[in-house]
Amino acid sequence: MELQQLDRYAKALIKEAGRKIRHSLTYELVIESKADANDLVTNMDKEIEQFFIEHIRKDYVGHAILGEEGFGDDLLSLNGYVWMLDPIDGTMNFIHQQRNFAISLGIFKDGIGVFGYIYDVMNDELYSAQKGHGAYLNDEPIPVLESTTISKAIIGMNASWVVPNRHIENEGLIRLVKDVRGIRSYGSAALELAYVSTGRIDAYMSMRLSPWDVAGGVVIAEEVGAVATNLKGQPLKFLGQDTFIVARKSLHDSLLANYITLK
Amino acid sequence: MELQQLDRYAKALIKEAGRKIRHSLTYELVIESKADANDLVTNMDKEIEQFFIEHIRKDYVGHAILGEEGFGDDLLSLNGYVWMLDPIDGTMNFIHQQRNFAISLGIFKDGIGVFGYIYDVMNDELYSAQKGHGAYLNDEPIPVLESTTISKAIIGMNASWVVPNRHIENEGLIRLVKDVRGIRSYGSAALELAYVSTGRIDAYMSMRLSPWDVAGGVVIAEEVGAVATNLKGQPLKFLGQDTFIVARKSLHDSLLANYITLK
Repeated sequence: MELQQLDRYAKALIKEAGRKIRHSLTYELVIESKADANDLVTNMDKEIEQFFIEHIRKDYVGHAILGEEGFGDDLLSLNGYVWMLDPIDGTMNFIHQQRNFAISLGIFKDGIGVFGYIYDVMNDELYSAQKGHGAYLNDEPIPVLESTTISKAIIGMNASWVVPNRHIENEGLIRLVKDVRGIRSYGSAALELAYVSTGRIDAYMSMRLSPWDVAGGVVIAEEVGAVATNLKGQPLKFLGQDTFIVARKSLHDSLLANYITLK
Repeated sequence: MELQQLDRYAKALIKEAGRKIRHSLTYELVIESKADANDLVTNMDKEIEQFFIEHIRKDYVGHAILGEEGFGDDLLSLNGYVWMLDPIDGTMNFIHQQRNFAISLGIFKDGIGVFGYIYDVMNDELYSAQKGHGAYLNDEPIPVLESTTISKAIIGMNASWVVPNRHIENEGLIRLVKDVRGIRSYGSAALELAYVSTGRIDAYMSMRLSPWDVAGGVVIAEEVGAVATNLKGQPLKFLGQDTFIVARKSLHDSLLANYITLK
């Protein structure tokens, strides 16, 4: 009962934050000068994070907050309730496109993801899940993912990991690009997690993500049977940056075993 | 006056085709079995092309049609009116995602693009332009693009061109990936042209596209000041496959001169 209240509360905050963002884009971007427009959007991350934090501190005393913009808490452990928030995941898209960004929120208890939310603000699409209770896109249940194969798979991965880089041996990813059906890159970890969860892409990986980028999405993805780990195959710690992969269960091991070699 | 009628006619056909597609996705995909679902979506390309062709042949006698699915005409020249149609651009997205695909249509007269349309079916967003009369997103004029620089640019490009391939020296594209602000890949040439036209990305390139993939988008992009050529910098011929680049004017020459070396 208490959990359902927390869920409703989080969803209401997210929707209200989304309205604030849409309002700013619709009205203020039109009247501001171009130079100010960049300030507006980069300030928006901070404003939205502060909006969340003010409410959470007031209504859920004792809950900790990990936020991308740094207005939350410095945590050494994930004891108790921790809200992991990226107020605008996909900031570059937000600035350049005014679409293809999301509010990403995971609510964890003692290190376990309890609720996950990804809100595609401009499409008004809220992906959500409670651990053990399935995942939803708005009010529709999201089906559990079926298995697939590498040759039929569409992978979300930025081209910057395919060129020589200091994180990963790119030869493996070059083979991957040739072996799969397609590669996509959308520029928002949260939305790519939503895409994996709904079967629109079959895996997503990145060499460097923070807890707030993936916390909400991982709860959702796991509810539909996807597997999320770091690129060594280890459980995610949700404290500090790490590599990241989420994939349909049938692809996860194969991707790690045959294509991923970290430097 | 006659041209305005042609414009209204084309828009009405596109909207009606979009309704057919949405209806199929909403109703039939739900009731069909999974195996049939793949047939349904791959048959949809053909059904939509035939819908266009039946109407055009009846109402615009003498107009030729170049269509991806092959129900149109085999043309050796672009004399007279030619409709260049991709009924579903981004078929892989259509099948896997049921979004991120578009109807792409260009109407050319004696080889010159007169009207261009890109219809993002699931978002109900119609990008359109008449040569010399500006471009629109639904009823809103699309502003002319401002200049930008490589280091601030977001480029639409599939990772498959960044790995060693038989079309292009990939070393140049590796440098490009490192020099730009971001790389995106959406899997629909038409939608990426729409994205360039609205400034959401700054350039898009591909090693192999057909006239129907780009005909509509090029009319739109040129109306907002973008430059579209093949990757040798030559004017597009719109007969047969070719390489392709569209970019803000300020980026086009620099991309070709500094990053593109065809094999």
